[in-house]
Amino acid sequence: METVGTSGKPRRGGRGARERILAAAAALFYEEGIQATGVARLVETAEVSTRTFYQHFPTKTALVEEYLRSYEARLSQRIEQYLTRDGLTPEDQLLALFAMVADAASGPSGRTTTRGCPLHNAAVEAAGTMPDVRELVQRHKQGLVRLLTDIAARAGADDPERLGRHLAVLLEGATALSTSLDSPHPRHDALDAARVLIDQALPDVSSATEQSSQGPDVVVG
Amino acid sequence: METVGTSGKPRRGGRGARERILAAAAALFYEEGIQATGVARLVETAEVSTRTFYQHFPTKTALVEEYLRSYEARLSQRIEQYLTRDGLTPEDQLLALFAMVADAASGPSGRTTTRGCPLHNAAVEAAGTMPDVRELVQRHKQGLVRLLTDIAARAGADDPERLGRHLAVLLEGATALSTSLDSPHPRHDALDAARVLIDQALPDVSSATEQSSQGPDVVVG
Repeated sequence: METVGTSGKPRRGGRGARERILAAAAALFYEEGIQATGVARLVETAEVSTRTFYQHFPTKTALVEEYLRSYEARLSQRIEQYLTRDGLTPEDQLLALFAMVADAASGPSGRTTTRGCPLHNAAVEAAGTMPDVRELVQRHKQGLVRLLTDIAARAGADDPERLGRHLAVLLEGATALSTSLDSPHPRHDALDAARVLIDQALPDVSSATEQSSQGPDVVVG
Repeated sequence: METVGTSGKPRRGGRGARERILAAAAALFYEEGIQATGVARLVETAEVSTRTFYQHFPTKTALVEEYLRSYEARLSQRIEQYLTRDGLTPEDQLLALFAMVADAASGPSGRTTTRGCPLHNAAVEAAGTMPDVRELVQRHKQGLVRLLTDIAARAGADDPERLGRHLAVLLEGATALSTSLDSPHPRHDALDAARVLIDQALPDVSSATEQSSQGPDVVVG
């Protein structure tokens, strides 16, 4: 990971190269697709040599996995931000996860994105050819079902596992239908539907809302 | 579309060739992915020459579109079968669409499939490179939202468009989360969640169920 050669001049194979490859992968894998993005295009966009590329990532699949791990880390941070806002009840936290997905309909550049969840998209593209990628996505989504179930339990749901599974399907549908319809609306529809499912699964909604005055309850962190 | 040449012997470029190409596409595009399946692999599996392939499909994208139209036609037939079963109320019909997706967790061969909806998967893979494919999927899913909304209206929902949109997100989540989790369970969870959303959206569930004695109500056909 040296960034400076013996001559003191920056080398193409240094730390900056790895970051440029990962930045190129994040943009191209997400916007144009994983299978459609070849090493030649990554090398060109990252402005590195093919040799440097393979020094950092022995296979394209290794880069796909690093791209997904990096996305997972950013997503975990974002989930934490949404869950630990002041004064949220567990019920509010469940809705906050749907609000997060609705907010994400506008990408960082402000323009609408309908490319869906990078992890789900990777599972679709991996099919039978990238088993480690399938496993990474599977583990992540299992974690999401557990998170929803845990919050549902703290919210007092009669059957937290059932509510957790229901909300997980709805949350995945929010981004997936957004891709299929090429529209941000399903992300907002999912938040609206989540309200109905949560209201039905919690024994007494009004008393749960009153608990918000007791202050925040940290779940992730 | 001649199948017999001037010599009277069968030709590789005849009607059977087109069917073999479509059969190879249906299997490979679905199981291994659209982008991962090249023309060379299609030609090899279909046992046709590259020249014959391009005589039938000038581009791979043309074959992708034909593959999706063919799937859409089969799906429409299956939807009709589920909706026109004897004695279904509109409420039953909404649930029948979710039962259909749950039933489809077991593929034709009896083994479990977790490859999701071919149309959604195509939208993921098409990204920005196949705009006509994106449009085909978009039109299909818009039709599905309309179908759900129409049945919701006949079921007497207070806000049929809202229920239609909610159920569309859930239905897409059923297959999408099935892919991500590599599990058939989300398809069954979606059916269970649909019951909750439908129960909540219909003003009087018990009287709607009693209408089933009035006989079937054909929606598609």
